[in-house]
Amino acid sequence: MADAGKSDPEKLEKGLGLAMQLFAGLEGTTPPMPAELERHTFEHLFGDVWQGPELELRERSLITCAVLVALGRESEQHLHFRGARNLGIDRETLEAMITHVAHYAGWPVAVSAARVLDQVWAEMDAAADAAS
Amino acid sequence: MADAGKSDPEKLEKGLGLAMQLFAGLEGTTPPMPAELERHTFEHLFGDVWQGPELELRERSLITCAVLVALGRESEQHLHFRGARNLGIDRETLEAMITHVAHYAGWPVAVSAARVLDQVWAEMDAAADAAS
Amino acid sequence: MADAGKSDPEKLEKGLGLAMQLFAGLEGTTPPMPAELERHTFEHLFGDVWQGPELELRERSLITCAVLVALGRESEQHLHFRGARNLGIDRETLEAMITHVAHYAGWPVAVSAARVLDQVWAEMDAAADAAS
Amino acid sequence: MADAGKSDPEKLEKGLGLAMQLFAGLEGTTPPMPAELERHTFEHLFGDVWQGPELELRERSLITCAVLVALGRESEQHLHFRGARNLGIDRETLEAMITHVAHYAGWPVAVSAARVLDQVWAEMDAAADAAS
Amino acid sequence: MADAGKSDPEKLEKGLGLAMQLFAGLEGTTPPMPAELERHTFEHLFGDVWQGPELELRERSLITCAVLVALGRESEQHLHFRGARNLGIDRETLEAMITHVAHYAGWPVAVSAARVLDQVWAEMDAAADAAS
Amino acid sequence: MADAGKSDPEKLEKGLGLAMQLFAGLEGTTPPMPAELERHTFEHLFGDVWQGPELELRERSLITCAVLVALGRESEQHLHFRGARNLGIDRETLEAMITHVAHYAGWPVAVSAARVLDQVWAEMDAAADAAS
Repeated sequence: MADAGKSDPEKLEKGLGLAMQLFAGLEGTTPPMPAELERHTFEHLFGDVWQGPELELRERSLITCAVLVALGRESEQHLHFRGARNLGIDRETLEAMITHVAHYAGWPVAVSAARVLDQVWAEMDAAADAAS
Repeated sequence: MADAGKSDPEKLEKGLGLAMQLFAGLEGTTPPMPAELERHTFEHLFGDVWQGPELELRERSLITCAVLVALGRESEQHLHFRGARNLGIDRETLEAMITHVAHYAGWPVAVSAARVLDQVWAEMDAAADAAS
Repeated sequence: MADAGKSDPEKLEKGLGLAMQLFAGLEGTTPPMPAELERHTFEHLFGDVWQGPELELRERSLITCAVLVALGRESEQHLHFRGARNLGIDRETLEAMITHVAHYAGWPVAVSAARVLDQVWAEMDAAADAAS
Repeated sequence: MADAGKSDPEKLEKGLGLAMQLFAGLEGTTPPMPAELERHTFEHLFGDVWQGPELELRERSLITCAVLVALGRESEQHLHFRGARNLGIDRETLEAMITHVAHYAGWPVAVSAARVLDQVWAEMDAAADAAS
Repeated sequence: MADAGKSDPEKLEKGLGLAMQLFAGLEGTTPPMPAELERHTFEHLFGDVWQGPELELRERSLITCAVLVALGRESEQHLHFRGARNLGIDRETLEAMITHVAHYAGWPVAVSAARVLDQVWAEMDAAADAAS
Repeated sequence: MADAGKSDPEKLEKGLGLAMQLFAGLEGTTPPMPAELERHTFEHLFGDVWQGPELELRERSLITCAVLVALGRESEQHLHFRGARNLGIDRETLEAMITHVAHYAGWPVAVSAARVLDQVWAEMDAAADAAS
């Protein structure tokens, strides 16, 4: 995946573990990434930044989702709303977050985020039904 | 729709009336919204903010459309470009607004907004033809 | 403060109470606001939206701060970083949030937010020292 | 000011005339601009785009101000809020616009814009008093 | 295409030439644009701004692509990533740019841009294969 | 500066070296940063990302400056416009970049960036004069 000289296998392992936890159910469907961006994503972002003990994982997920709503990044909301549910955050919490963020970043990003949330929940409900 | 204790039926009625006027032709197609966000949208945003007498409805629509172009919110442009036409704003006015905003928020948001405008007008022309 | 017909005294009271809790220490220093925007701020935003039980106050504060960092709104960070401290959120938590958001909204907004955080903490420390 | 071969004196004259109308009272205080950006500003933006007949000048000003609020561009709000007043747009209209845009682009940009509006009005009132 | 009185045929010719060079392979597929925005695009933007000698064409393309990534404008990335390749910029350069911009504008815009880059390269490879 | 277990001294050394090169003349004036953000800045951002061979240093600087203009991050423009000059990029190049970006991210961010550029050049000219 990356330049051996620059790589840190311990961070990489932690980062891949976290990504598997967050994005369970999306295996094999995420798009290709430039090799260096992939290295930074798993080693640095998930393997170092997200591992910091000052915030709980649930808080990091909620913060990430709020920022993705505020910035209107709908593609990435698909990933991290799923991540939030995989961490045990419920729909009511995310709906309240979207409603709250509507007032700090505007109605348009909130309306679109609500639609993404609806899609993610439907997909995960369908997968849960299919598995049972 | 909402917590009776917090709800204001008079604002809600005004807000639903305005939404029906703006979004005529979209009935039943708008995506689901969290209950609280829906309450704030119809009671507070359409039923209170949009009702203020300091701006004409046409001005509020034009301002809303300009902001949606500047922020690159294409999903919501679909709603409010239609709203503008339903209020009697013509295509030339919206095209001039988009061209103007290109210079304050950049070409990319303007080029995308022009495409949405084209789609909205085509849809509404087709619906008008079908109805006649 | 506002049009009696539209006003909801119960929400207003709750909203003013919350604003006093969040922004303790800033009394009399906040800038003038248009009357309608002030009404919406205290009655609707602080008196209704922020009162929702689906999120704890600490979570609403953290989400608000994260969004203000992501959007680069430094003037408003001065208010809400203070609000966070007044709710008992510590500096390490906010620093970790800023470091996290750096990766979702970019380094530049994080670097500026870190400077604001430093100023807010210095001001509040100085006021605490002066009071003791 | 610009490369004679590329320059269009007629547009330049119209553009400088409009800029003098909008920014009356700011003569000599605007910061230096790169020569090409200055040429594009006066010839192209004010001398061509703003001259289009599809929108009234008052509408172009209101749209420009709304976009500057939505994008949080406070330095440029100083120029264009003044421009709006020089075109006869009153404070109540701009306050209602800011309150409206709060809901489409978020509270933080609106709160800051309200502060700029207050400053611009105070400066222009002071200048009007001094002149009388 | 435009009002003869305002039009500058020399700039228009240069601008159309550059657009044909940048967007070779997209002929006939770009969406309709308002007439004035089209005039400004070909005469002013491509026919004047992009012609300035202070930056090489390759640098203008790279800057444009970086800004489109930072602003999250994926529709326009489709055009200008193609433009970059048509100017001889290779995939590794654009991948490194996206990875770099991830740190200044956030991971979400970079992840989406990487997906667009992948699509543009696949389309252009397929067209090259079909032509050979 | 950072947790020894996570730290990579080789990247840190490279990163500090680059920062000294870019920001020569600002020693001791940069604001305090959270410890983890500082670690990520010097080890990861300057010590790893900026070290990639796919882009020349001059290109990374120009891309960074363009993104900072597009996002309207004036505080950080002060750092990186200086960085660009310290790498040998001249004022005309940066002015042309700002003028170009005006069209992709809007006039307001460009007008403000031109002011910052003017300040940075004046400060560095004054320092050069004082040193000679």
